[in-house]
Amino acid sequence: MQIAIVGLGRMGANIARRLMRGGHEIVAYDVSKDAVQALSREGAMPAGSLEDLVAKLKAPRAVWVMLPAGKITEDCIAVLSGLLSAGDTVIDGGNTYYKDDVRRAAALREKSLTYIDVGTSGGVWGLDRGYCMMIGGDKGAVDRLDPIFATLAPGVGSIDKTPNRESRDPRVEQGYMHCGPAGSGHFVKMVHNGIEYGMMQAFAEGFEIMQGRANEDLPEAERFTLDLPDIAEVWRRGSVVSSWLLDLTSQALAEKPALDNFTGIVSDSGEGRWTVEAAIEEAVPAHVLSASLYARFSSRRPGSFANRLLSAMRAKFGGHVEPK
Amino acid sequence: MQIAIVGLGRMGANIARRLMRGGHEIVAYDVSKDAVQALSREGAMPAGSLEDLVAKLKAPRAVWVMLPAGKITEDCIAVLSGLLSAGDTVIDGGNTYYKDDVRRAAALREKSLTYIDVGTSGGVWGLDRGYCMMIGGDKGAVDRLDPIFATLAPGVGSIDKTPNRESRDPRVEQGYMHCGPAGSGHFVKMVHNGIEYGMMQAFAEGFEIMQGRANEDLPEAERFTLDLPDIAEVWRRGSVVSSWLLDLTSQALAEKPALDNFTGIVSDSGEGRWTVEAAIEEAVPAHVLSASLYARFSSRRPGSFANRLLSAMRAKFGGHVEPK
Amino acid sequence: MQIAIVGLGRMGANIARRLMRGGHEIVAYDVSKDAVQALSREGAMPAGSLEDLVAKLKAPRAVWVMLPAGKITEDCIAVLSGLLSAGDTVIDGGNTYYKDDVRRAAALREKSLTYIDVGTSGGVWGLDRGYCMMIGGDKGAVDRLDPIFATLAPGVGSIDKTPNRESRDPRVEQGYMHCGPAGSGHFVKMVHNGIEYGMMQAFAEGFEIMQGRANEDLPEAERFTLDLPDIAEVWRRGSVVSSWLLDLTSQALAEKPALDNFTGIVSDSGEGRWTVEAAIEEAVPAHVLSASLYARFSSRRPGSFANRLLSAMRAKFGGHVEPK
Amino acid sequence: MQIAIVGLGRMGANIARRLMRGGHEIVAYDVSKDAVQALSREGAMPAGSLEDLVAKLKAPRAVWVMLPAGKITEDCIAVLSGLLSAGDTVIDGGNTYYKDDVRRAAALREKSLTYIDVGTSGGVWGLDRGYCMMIGGDKGAVDRLDPIFATLAPGVGSIDKTPNRESRDPRVEQGYMHCGPAGSGHFVKMVHNGIEYGMMQAFAEGFEIMQGRANEDLPEAERFTLDLPDIAEVWRRGSVVSSWLLDLTSQALAEKPALDNFTGIVSDSGEGRWTVEAAIEEAVPAHVLSASLYARFSSRRPGSFANRLLSAMRAKFGGHVEPK
Repeated sequence: MQIAIVGLGRMGANIARRLMRGGHEIVAYDVSKDAVQALSREGAMPAGSLEDLVAKLKAPRAVWVMLPAGKITEDCIAVLSGLLSAGDTVIDGGNTYYKDDVRRAAALREKSLTYIDVGTSGGVWGLDRGYCMMIGGDKGAVDRLDPIFATLAPGVGSIDKTPNRESRDPRVEQGYMHCGPAGSGHFVKMVHNGIEYGMMQAFAEGFEIMQGRANEDLPEAERFTLDLPDIAEVWRRGSVVSSWLLDLTSQALAEKPALDNFTGIVSDSGEGRWTVEAAIEEAVPAHVLSASLYARFSSRRPGSFANRLLSAMRAKFGGHVEPK
Repeated sequence: MQIAIVGLGRMGANIARRLMRGGHEIVAYDVSKDAVQALSREGAMPAGSLEDLVAKLKAPRAVWVMLPAGKITEDCIAVLSGLLSAGDTVIDGGNTYYKDDVRRAAALREKSLTYIDVGTSGGVWGLDRGYCMMIGGDKGAVDRLDPIFATLAPGVGSIDKTPNRESRDPRVEQGYMHCGPAGSGHFVKMVHNGIEYGMMQAFAEGFEIMQGRANEDLPEAERFTLDLPDIAEVWRRGSVVSSWLLDLTSQALAEKPALDNFTGIVSDSGEGRWTVEAAIEEAVPAHVLSASLYARFSSRRPGSFANRLLSAMRAKFGGHVEPK
Repeated sequence: MQIAIVGLGRMGANIARRLMRGGHEIVAYDVSKDAVQALSREGAMPAGSLEDLVAKLKAPRAVWVMLPAGKITEDCIAVLSGLLSAGDTVIDGGNTYYKDDVRRAAALREKSLTYIDVGTSGGVWGLDRGYCMMIGGDKGAVDRLDPIFATLAPGVGSIDKTPNRESRDPRVEQGYMHCGPAGSGHFVKMVHNGIEYGMMQAFAEGFEIMQGRANEDLPEAERFTLDLPDIAEVWRRGSVVSSWLLDLTSQALAEKPALDNFTGIVSDSGEGRWTVEAAIEEAVPAHVLSASLYARFSSRRPGSFANRLLSAMRAKFGGHVEPK
Repeated sequence: MQIAIVGLGRMGANIARRLMRGGHEIVAYDVSKDAVQALSREGAMPAGSLEDLVAKLKAPRAVWVMLPAGKITEDCIAVLSGLLSAGDTVIDGGNTYYKDDVRRAAALREKSLTYIDVGTSGGVWGLDRGYCMMIGGDKGAVDRLDPIFATLAPGVGSIDKTPNRESRDPRVEQGYMHCGPAGSGHFVKMVHNGIEYGMMQAFAEGFEIMQGRANEDLPEAERFTLDLPDIAEVWRRGSVVSSWLLDLTSQALAEKPALDNFTGIVSDSGEGRWTVEAAIEEAVPAHVLSASLYARFSSRRPGSFANRLLSAMRAKFGGHVEPK
């Protein structure tokens, strides 16, 4: 079927490519004319502006917005909502805060437009592996766009079937899911990323404990110099921690066992923060998800005010001097 | 090759079975005569006592002890060390504390016996999937027992190959690894379990946040009733959190979406505790691994003294009364 | 000077009393006529409605609102803002979210009204000990109301003087402080409560560790039956943890050493949550403040979904059965 | 009464001074002859060796060892135990691990010697304020040494009396306490320090949140430049967080509001680690005490392996690049 893609960065361009490979017709727009031309050479119909893009679509139109979350997406959808007609659909495929989805869906509904939020996981690997999609919004529109989602999804693949799912929605096993009303897709994606933070931090701490086992302060018989690349690899077969993150860990360690190509200053995107805020709103204790987020904050704050205050108190009550 | 198995519980019996399927000769002993007879009917040579077991082995002997960690294993190995001859090997395949391995290996070395510690992951699934093994101890003995480990291991399977491992030990891709001197096998297994705790807790918190999203206290438009079994399943395809633990989560939720067949009182075995202690010994911050352990402690302490003291302080400074 | 108090609950009535003791003239209003009459008998001028209250004040008027944070306070201030005249001041002395203060102050400024937010600590003890006050809002109005704050504050008392404060604002040593623009008073109070949560939890964990030391599972020589009321008391003299919270802990333990008059279900008010949210907004790692909040959440969720999921995973990968 | 002090560092010398001020007779020894001479000039009887020290004491002898915990204390007590006679007492006033106390007390008991462990809080302020003491060991010896403890303790002072303590041990209000058998004194002191870590970290996080509120990324109306020295001072009067640590914080901030005389590299002594280990032994969740310890570990590990691994995984799954 026909769909427009707005935003042809790495994610947007790959989504367009995977859809074209699946036989869909793409109208492509980006503020960068080069990006539009590049995708045009791969078979997309180029659009010179949002007006042009809307004009090139047959009603009911579908526009997939794949831009950085926040003001850029907000503004683009505002403009689109002035150009589209009743019955058209806007899909936000970015990393939008779910409360923004709820608000936008209500605003578009006023204009008889439909808003769909799609959380996607799979990142740079999605073009080939497919995108795992969590979809929120009006059921009718989600059903109408099913060919799009089916093409983008990873499909059943060679993964073992889970028993007791006979009576359940078969799309889920293809790797996409209609989660509920507007906002629910990005909500589920947000929690997914919160869990991802926790899993990453669990691996990070475990590997640091193993790396630290060669420390010369330890008793000699309890000191081990462990081969971390081999440990990551061996766990990939039959162990309880086997996972895609472990696969990637094994790859990274095989390339550079000391990881000295990294500084250890770790960014966070919004999802980890929003997950903790959602937990607090619901009074759910989220020790691990919070600690994972804070570990990233700490990585960016050496010599923080908090730590200096600890030293100041220790100097006051015990005359303790900081180590050099 | 020939090997004895002491301890024919679920783990020990399955290890014996997998070895017999691989063509090895098993001498089997357990305090339960029924367990010995059962395995004997499957092809093992039965032993009536540890003395009998040692007598039935050709030198250099290999005895795999598969008993609950702690005093039972300790005592069994002490008895065996009095029965075996120079050059023989004891393998502890249980969940032993690595410092006990270090101590025992030194004691056995005095008697020219070799001690090997094998951490295994794979649990009840190991008979069919194979056991991921982390091995510590003398290189000569580990190499001599290679046929045993090769049979028990999962093998390469259909898992994607990790690049840049061409010059590395090929056994690792089969799912077993010689980690270093005595104790290092159980040390690596211990950290594995620590990471497992963290991953489990990350999933647990994330799913609780999703479950709590139907809470009636939330604004109606931001309230979602999410289908948790479907979410677990959809994440199995293409998402960053895909993992064996997620596979199992999906199975459990498909069986009983509300998980009301469980009380939520969660045990912990020693490994989580020892991992935190190792982290502290090395001054490694282990926020997530500790919090995961403590979540289990908390699950067993409703109305704890700590919480009562919080209430007592709140009553004192603010006149606050506990909710009913 | 003259001031009105709206809301004559425990906090509001005691504030009125302390002000009357200090020679100020109070106009008092509450939805409960009984509360108004009671305070009237103690010397306050009763008001039958907000209109009446405003009529009884001389311009420029000052109205101290002491109501539960949220809708009740919001509505009351909305009504007052329609009754008051340019140059009048509304003081919110409750536990309002600082972002609500920022918004309200802007709205009142439109009508030439001044909004002051006062965070108070001291709780049920404030009538006698005085209230520690953190004040946000317009400097002119704060200065004009100084006689009110000076009376409510604890005063210098017998507390040791902090050196190097000669050139600093002398009001601070009296126990009240102008923190900055509207919202800053409640912001500082919010962080104060966040710290309070952390300190309380530190004591709670420490005392639980001491209480647990009599546990029969421990080796006999390392098992101690400790007298917790005496420990709390001894620390009050000369130790690093001496604090008002410790004084209260000592009182509570002296009354009931086992604290079996409490269930350990611990409420949280908004401040702990908002403090964590502020930390996240600023990317400050707040491990301890978050963990303190989550401990309270956990106290209210025995058998949580998270914990049941842990049990479900353990059953799946290891065949583990929950303890009874 | 007469007592020997071994170890005349800051702590030992001040303890000797406070005892001499109280009329006790001190026999003083240190490996530094200068330290011995200095104290001799203040009235102590100098000892040239441990043998000399023992010779100068009348039986039953009491020797207070005030040395760094660990090997130095261990060796000193071993030597003393060879020099002393049945009925003599060794007091370890250092920061010894309580399990070492348990072991040593048993060893000395074999020789009819008594071992007392004294945990002291008060640090560099103890000479004037007195030492808060937590005492473990044989009741008879503790009672015999009561004049020593009574002199070292802070005394009742001007601190408000706790109600309901009429039937309790009056020594506790003086600031010293017999906690139980050998090891219990240092155990209680250890937990005290664990709580101290938690309280310090609560203040550290809270003040960092307030310091970070001037951050230019925040919306202008929600951005506050807060005077931290004044905030610490105002909380000293009437607030729930008033405490000795807050007094010291106020002093430190008044001296240097930015605390830029500190680097924020924070040491930890053994007690925080042991407290967490004790919690784990007892299965007590100690989120806050652990997090406080880990914050110190983190302060010493910028660019840790754990953080580099997080970056490596992010690069692998999302192509994310670290910030400069």
